[in-house]
Amino acid sequence: MRRLALAALLAALPTAGFAQNVHVNPSNGFISSAVKVPAGSEMLYVSGITPELVPGAPAATPYGDTKTQTISVLKRIEGILKGQGYGWEDVVMMRVVLVGDPAKGGVMDFAGMMEGYNSIYGSLTKKPARITSQVAGLVRPGMYAEIEVQAAKAPSK
Amino acid sequence: MRRLALAALLAALPTAGFAQNVHVNPSNGFISSAVKVPAGSEMLYVSGITPELVPGAPAATPYGDTKTQTISVLKRIEGILKGQGYGWEDVVMMRVVLVGDPAKGGVMDFAGMMEGYNSIYGSLTKKPARITSQVAGLVRPGMYAEIEVQAAKAPSK
Amino acid sequence: MRRLALAALLAALPTAGFAQNVHVNPSNGFISSAVKVPAGSEMLYVSGITPELVPGAPAATPYGDTKTQTISVLKRIEGILKGQGYGWEDVVMMRVVLVGDPAKGGVMDFAGMMEGYNSIYGSLTKKPARITSQVAGLVRPGMYAEIEVQAAKAPSK
Repeated sequence: MRRLALAALLAALPTAGFAQNVHVNPSNGFISSAVKVPAGSEMLYVSGITPELVPGAPAATPYGDTKTQTISVLKRIEGILKGQGYGWEDVVMMRVVLVGDPAKGGVMDFAGMMEGYNSIYGSLTKKPARITSQVAGLVRPGMYAEIEVQAAKAPSK
Repeated sequence: MRRLALAALLAALPTAGFAQNVHVNPSNGFISSAVKVPAGSEMLYVSGITPELVPGAPAATPYGDTKTQTISVLKRIEGILKGQGYGWEDVVMMRVVLVGDPAKGGVMDFAGMMEGYNSIYGSLTKKPARITSQVAGLVRPGMYAEIEVQAAKAPSK
Repeated sequence: MRRLALAALLAALPTAGFAQNVHVNPSNGFISSAVKVPAGSEMLYVSGITPELVPGAPAATPYGDTKTQTISVLKRIEGILKGQGYGWEDVVMMRVVLVGDPAKGGVMDFAGMMEGYNSIYGSLTKKPARITSQVAGLVRPGMYAEIEVQAAKAPSK
């Protein structure tokens, strides 16, 4: 009996649509200060995603520059999100790791990353919380950007 | 009918207060080995937070040393947590990234970070799980510390 | 009355077993592209875990090589997971930070980490999402590997 009641409630839950992520201060800048995920949400953990090779690129920069790599990474993440029924505005946390760009004196190309990032989020109102740091290296030489995201939403069915 | 029953249950849920985060081995050291977040919890993802400029600081160290920066970062995080109805003991995970301090031979000032950290958590019993690593760089030169946290609790209303 | 109904439902929830993590594309490689955590799951945040000292190891490599360290770290994580009623297939996200190995020209020993990782996950079908990066340093000299995991499952009782 109890199980039947539970099943009925679970079936009713998604259509109730009671829960929405709360994006704190997204208008203060390019990211949210914080994102609150309501109780009862489903979570999606996406692996760190690296960029794709650029056909015909110079040997020294097989994945292109940081902006190019960021866009490539975001496109791949988008495919994973969509495959699971998620979109960009469901992303609650984004972790960006960049490698120092030799063309920028060995410092991470933060501005280049931001251009890639804003090609997606520049026009969206629900921006993720985010952390960006420069690491010593990624899996392959010439990789300057890798991104990992977590998304959340009320169950889709 | 089902939706009404669900709404009634959801309204009743928070006051039930059945769920508490479980901090594993917090007494073994300065952090918890792990923190268990019960089903039905709300989550808060806070962006990586950087320190504020220190008025009158030397040009080479505009944000102060690692201890100073850690305290600055934690104060800013505290403001974000409080603004969402959270406190330090709700933090379940903390990720600390430090940059090598030139005054420490280019190695991260772990002890300085700990002094800042303990100014908060030294007197609290519910300590977060944590990871600390030295990265190659943060967004601006002179930044030695950035911290990202996740917090969880039963819905507040 | 409402609280009683809720308590009954919560008691019924775990035995219903409706929720399972969904591992996306685990067969495409050694990790999952993403892992979906169903609503109503309990979460476990484990601290970044460092390796144990190797008795009798050379002074320059007190924790052994990257493979050795990875296995040491995973054993310690396993103990924490088991202590909380979790297993390897409950891990949804793994963050691996490696330090450049002097014996590998200062580059992270990704292959060594993978050997350690596959000693656990090589035979399991539910693989975590994962991110791996090379950082500038860990807490102690000679540490080449630190790992942090998050696990999720339907409540165990």
